[in-house]
Amino acid sequence: MGRRNYCLIVSYDGTRYSGWQRLPNAKTVQGSIEAALSEIFSEPIEISGSGRTDAGVHAKMQVASFAAANRPLDKLLSELRSRLPEDIGAERLLLADERFHARLSATEKTYTYYIRNGTAPDPFGRKYRTRIVQPLDVEKMRLAAQKLCGKHDFMAFCSNKHYKKSSVRDLRRITIEQHGEDIDISMTADGFLYNMARILTGTLIEIGLNQRQLDSIEEIFASRCRENAGQTAPAKGLCLTEVRYEHSDFWKKQML
Amino acid sequence: MGRRNYCLIVSYDGTRYSGWQRLPNAKTVQGSIEAALSEIFSEPIEISGSGRTDAGVHAKMQVASFAAANRPLDKLLSELRSRLPEDIGAERLLLADERFHARLSATEKTYTYYIRNGTAPDPFGRKYRTRIVQPLDVEKMRLAAQKLCGKHDFMAFCSNKHYKKSSVRDLRRITIEQHGEDIDISMTADGFLYNMARILTGTLIEIGLNQRQLDSIEEIFASRCRENAGQTAPAKGLCLTEVRYEHSDFWKKQML
Repeated sequence: MGRRNYCLIVSYDGTRYSGWQRLPNAKTVQGSIEAALSEIFSEPIEISGSGRTDAGVHAKMQVASFAAANRPLDKLLSELRSRLPEDIGAERLLLADERFHARLSATEKTYTYYIRNGTAPDPFGRKYRTRIVQPLDVEKMRLAAQKLCGKHDFMAFCSNKHYKKSSVRDLRRITIEQHGEDIDISMTADGFLYNMARILTGTLIEIGLNQRQLDSIEEIFASRCRENAGQTAPAKGLCLTEVRYEHSDFWKKQML
Repeated sequence: MGRRNYCLIVSYDGTRYSGWQRLPNAKTVQGSIEAALSEIFSEPIEISGSGRTDAGVHAKMQVASFAAANRPLDKLLSELRSRLPEDIGAERLLLADERFHARLSATEKTYTYYIRNGTAPDPFGRKYRTRIVQPLDVEKMRLAAQKLCGKHDFMAFCSNKHYKKSSVRDLRRITIEQHGEDIDISMTADGFLYNMARILTGTLIEIGLNQRQLDSIEEIFASRCRENAGQTAPAKGLCLTEVRYEHSDFWKKQML
């Protein structure tokens, strides 16, 4: 009978949602998944996500953990799939070590920001890419990305001015890929502050548009002041694309 | 000053539209493009599409022709793009030979039907793929596709029972590609009758589900009776993916 610790991998189109985090009077991704699980288990189930995504932000891989009664994984996954709306996908369900916690155990996350740079239309990607008409200097953005990477105090890249904990993060990699008019910026860090991925992107865009100098980056860091960094890029272009965990023993092998 | 014959290549997400063809009291793709062009030229502009797509059907490449005053192509294209909604993309605008007509000159069209076969979720493709949970026998569908191809009277694959003209079409190729749970059926013919691509798909699906025998196909053709063919597959999985024209001189070289 005992309770088990589950690990759920989900993807979602965030367009219709007020973000990941459960809110009393709004449709959220966490709230929708919890409602489905609570129905299945006939008791209130709370889940912990690897992190919150903002309203309108998407996820190809978000991870959540929760404790609940022991049930066969395949049956549970199919019951969950039948209850979730079409824009939230239950990709996989695994049994996790009892110490596993989707947020606390996460060691690295990757967000990808999708840009359409130009005037060519994009009727099928329009909800997942931010359009920037003026040409971006991608080489300059790559130089800026190098300066942004590393272990820094990212307080200037955080929308929450009252954030009290350490705002030091290790921004491990930024890769910028260009295919025709599509520019994909992938940012990998041990953690992201509130709006950090979007403010990093906004800063890179301003540099790519020659509205901001490369050497302003050191000043932004030193100032710890949100006003000095770039604008917060629109939510719809952002997607949580990977969450990593260090200890492989957190993940038992019952994959589906 | 003289009038020119233009060729416009568009893509669209058909979800919000009552199909291609202009209708008095409904939002249609043709109607939306004509409204934009009429505004630009300050006179009513009528366009001819290569064919009508049904309500909810998408297009990656639809072709339309229209006559209008002589204008610089690049300026015209950017004015059109700025007026069209985000789910209709003006991909290219060309000057065409005066004899060019998007429907009458077309020699071949390809429709692709997108299926998700299984239970894995697809939050980003959900509006463009039809889900079929039970496993499809793709090899059997390929054998059926061979029997469907060729020059036949496709009256049994036409939803318009009162269709008076010749219902003989040359179905030149059907290719069925499978990648994981995704199955893409591409159908190429010199022309398609009303709902023909969706009824062909519905028939292939019934064969793939073992609900219909391979050798029923000859009987379907012989009967010329709609009731004997498979169901009309849902609109959202269908996309017009290519339109071809024989005479390359119809296409002048002013590509954008």
